[in-house]
Amino acid sequence: MMDKIPSFERLVESFSRLPGIGKKTAQRLAYYVLRSKNNFTEEFREAIKQVKELINECPTCYTYTENEGDCYYCVDVDRRNDMFCVVEDPADIQQLESSGAFKGRYHVLHGAINPLDGVGPDDLRIKQLISRIKSQATDGEEPIKEVILALDANLEGDTTALYLAKALSEFDIQVSRIAHGVPIGGHIDYVDHRTLGKALENRIVL
Amino acid sequence: MMDKIPSFERLVESFSRLPGIGKKTAQRLAYYVLRSKNNFTEEFREAIKQVKELINECPTCYTYTENEGDCYYCVDVDRRNDMFCVVEDPADIQQLESSGAFKGRYHVLHGAINPLDGVGPDDLRIKQLISRIKSQATDGEEPIKEVILALDANLEGDTTALYLAKALSEFDIQVSRIAHGVPIGGHIDYVDHRTLGKALENRIVL
Repeated sequence: MMDKIPSFERLVESFSRLPGIGKKTAQRLAYYVLRSKNNFTEEFREAIKQVKELINECPTCYTYTENEGDCYYCVDVDRRNDMFCVVEDPADIQQLESSGAFKGRYHVLHGAINPLDGVGPDDLRIKQLISRIKSQATDGEEPIKEVILALDANLEGDTTALYLAKALSEFDIQVSRIAHGVPIGGHIDYVDHRTLGKALENRIVL
Repeated sequence: MMDKIPSFERLVESFSRLPGIGKKTAQRLAYYVLRSKNNFTEEFREAIKQVKELINECPTCYTYTENEGDCYYCVDVDRRNDMFCVVEDPADIQQLESSGAFKGRYHVLHGAINPLDGVGPDDLRIKQLISRIKSQATDGEEPIKEVILALDANLEGDTTALYLAKALSEFDIQVSRIAHGVPIGGHIDYVDHRTLGKALENRIVL
């Protein structure tokens, strides 16, 4: 028999739930927390709490924001209203912004179609994208000319791009996808800014 | 300019402080927390809190324990009192217990001598080890026959072993070190149980 310290095991268990953190790493992190100063652990606990309390999804583009209403990008009057860039995750927006090659509006799907994981079109913000396009066409606002798909260059991204190209074909808008300057199999979130700028420039009309 | 979400950045910052967690990984973990259910984040926050509140150092061997007084190993009447096994960290005890090859008492140094990081003998529980040995020799308790050093097989472990061999030479006790079945340069915490059992069996008298 061995001495198990229940509170320590619970912290190891919590760390193990995080993506890419195995048992050994979780133990190392739990030891670090156990040895750290109280002000670090209080900061850490407060940061976890505030992320859940303060961050909302923007009601227009669905990125994360601390604003009560529309996000930083949706309220920015210096952006084009006739171009949408569709991304899988909020983190992708920061990458695209760093490239400086896009000055339109964003739309966050919160994932990509992945039948193996049971993620279908209804689990993503696709309906919301379509109603956004529709309302912008009928509300006397500037109608949308182009939707750029900045999706990951993998099977799920490809599937989602094909699905969206078909779903948006009823509208008179150009649907494009950023060029495969993004390495095949890679994630948008990990690409350098110049490659991403090039990929936006060389987008292919679908 | 880009939209920074302050509460998100603070959580990324907290994760980045953990050992072996870089900026990208910290962002991934923060996104996971942001997307996770409230009951997970509450469990996680509570686990961090309780690890700090409930875990003490054993006043005898200095391992971590939730007991108010002596730890599980120090109160166990089925263990030999005349043998000590000295380890760097509490995690090492669990590894040694898994090997099943040691049934004496433990003593945790909480580190190893490392002049480059400014860790000297006074920063470790070495004085406490010596007074433990002394009091056990004079209190009419069973005197200690052997001290086994189960230290990491690296420069810090070697330095600490030499220091302890010298410091304990004034007593009539055998000081030994577990055999180098542990790969050179490796950490005790990562070794399989059979290798560790063999290393205990083949310990070398210093």
